[in-house]
Amino acid sequence: MSERGWIEKYFAPLARAPGAARLSDDTAELSRQTGPVVITTDAMVEGVHFLSGDPVESLARKLVRVNVSDILSSGAVPLEALLVLGWPPSRTEEDLAAFVGALGAELDAWGISLIGGDTVSAPGGLFLSLTLTGACMANAPIRRNGAAPGDELWVTGEIGGARLGFLARAAGRDSPHHLQLLEPKIPGLAAARLMAAHASAAMDVSDGFLGDAATLARASGCGVDITLSDVPFADHAPDLAEALELATWGDDYQLLFAVPESGRERLETDALSCGIRISRIGRLTAGDGLNVTWQGAHVNLPETLGFEHGRIGASLTRP
Amino acid sequence: MSERGWIEKYFAPLARAPGAARLSDDTAELSRQTGPVVITTDAMVEGVHFLSGDPVESLARKLVRVNVSDILSSGAVPLEALLVLGWPPSRTEEDLAAFVGALGAELDAWGISLIGGDTVSAPGGLFLSLTLTGACMANAPIRRNGAAPGDELWVTGEIGGARLGFLARAAGRDSPHHLQLLEPKIPGLAAARLMAAHASAAMDVSDGFLGDAATLARASGCGVDITLSDVPFADHAPDLAEALELATWGDDYQLLFAVPESGRERLETDALSCGIRISRIGRLTAGDGLNVTWQGAHVNLPETLGFEHGRIGASLTRP
Repeated sequence: MSERGWIEKYFAPLARAPGAARLSDDTAELSRQTGPVVITTDAMVEGVHFLSGDPVESLARKLVRVNVSDILSSGAVPLEALLVLGWPPSRTEEDLAAFVGALGAELDAWGISLIGGDTVSAPGGLFLSLTLTGACMANAPIRRNGAAPGDELWVTGEIGGARLGFLARAAGRDSPHHLQLLEPKIPGLAAARLMAAHASAAMDVSDGFLGDAATLARASGCGVDITLSDVPFADHAPDLAEALELATWGDDYQLLFAVPESGRERLETDALSCGIRISRIGRLTAGDGLNVTWQGAHVNLPETLGFEHGRIGASLTRP
Repeated sequence: MSERGWIEKYFAPLARAPGAARLSDDTAELSRQTGPVVITTDAMVEGVHFLSGDPVESLARKLVRVNVSDILSSGAVPLEALLVLGWPPSRTEEDLAAFVGALGAELDAWGISLIGGDTVSAPGGLFLSLTLTGACMANAPIRRNGAAPGDELWVTGEIGGARLGFLARAAGRDSPHHLQLLEPKIPGLAAARLMAAHASAAMDVSDGFLGDAATLARASGCGVDITLSDVPFADHAPDLAEALELATWGDDYQLLFAVPESGRERLETDALSCGIRISRIGRLTAGDGLNVTWQGAHVNLPETLGFEHGRIGASLTRP
């Protein structure tokens, strides 16, 4: 089937926004917004971010979610997406149909319109890239650099599920966390309003919880104290060694955000009312660097705090 | 070097727009525009769209231009870009520096700000994808579907240079067209105003001139008559066989556009004043399909009218 044929059969039905013109043109028109609009793009590569045998439905859901978590962390709700699909000639049309079906359902679930993209042959392996826009719910995007000393640090959901799923897969064990590895569970749309209303700074946790916390603090010109024993780990009773492993692995796609202490009560009320689990796990400081405690005792940190997904110029050993 | 290191050393210096925040965050803020904004994305894959040995500087320039031609054809000027770079571990940092240098210069030349992106390891071969926004100069984007029977069909620049360059390279001959293959020469920014002011429909010529002309006509619910002997070919005196070859190859990235006959004089004046070469090469009709003449005589068309760059699910034999 030709590119035009694939587009008309599989992708055009997903493109229902007026500006998408059913993907007939090379450009799409962005919908008009009254407030600020943010944009992000994240790519996934076979053999680097996923294995050849991973279900394509999971790839589709993960592709959307890793981009949505960036948009939500900015205090924005996702709007419109462009897909770049590098498809190996060796994969079947059934595989493509399954990918597109899952992609369409996932985009629908978030209220996202597919408005454009490019499909190319990729003999070197499947790659996927999504560009996603989002409408800010505040007068400006929430960034990483807005936290102040004294602000409390919070995280949504649980940390470490992807690591537990990875270990289970490596050991050939069944695990309730297996799915978390393939398709991260991220907070819902209400998280955008929560960030916009409360956060002085926010980012998603993609490269390891501790490293990302250090990144947010550094961007804000602060240090940060983390109470590791307060972090909501997917394995509910880890020892320190396991906690450090789960906190430095990544692939969580939860939101890490700072809120002034005076806003704590309102934050907790709002989070409760919209059903988003949040945990207070630290505090920004006037110093610099990262200070971690575990049940009241200082923790010596491992040298590598997080995984760099996008490392280039070097082989990645992690799937 | 880590992804963060590469970004800070090579990419952050290109990100000078305020909304880009020097690429420190996962999202960027789009600049606000009073009129409509269009968006496009085009990808290029090693072994499909270019050869492994092609100069990375040419790849950078081509990547920008194949996206800019889409934006210009919508009657819009390019604004902001996001880059997805899939970089094979086997390529050197010198190669990356050369790529980024050329990319920065090319973006600058078009007034485009790099505001975001993603860099990933790509063991299966280099791939590049750019997402580009554009500000419309009219109240709506110029699309493919706005032409009416009787409108005249025009094209900018020359057709067939990439094909001539390809043939020369295949034969090991030097050629003035070699560069056109590696990095297309496209019309300048003034083309956006020209499209916005005059065109009833427009698209860029990427998949073969005749096929693209048929696509524009079909999108507009028209047929089209093409006077092939009026097409400005890069080889100035082709015979019919060569003309058909050049008109069905693609990779031209010139603008193909329709203008009501009554607008011809103003169009020609404007094109002259902004230095854009245009040629009138056909007319939309009330029928359907494509009718081609050569020096007054009807031409029987080859079965394949254009090349599908993005064909997926099949091996591409063309570099």
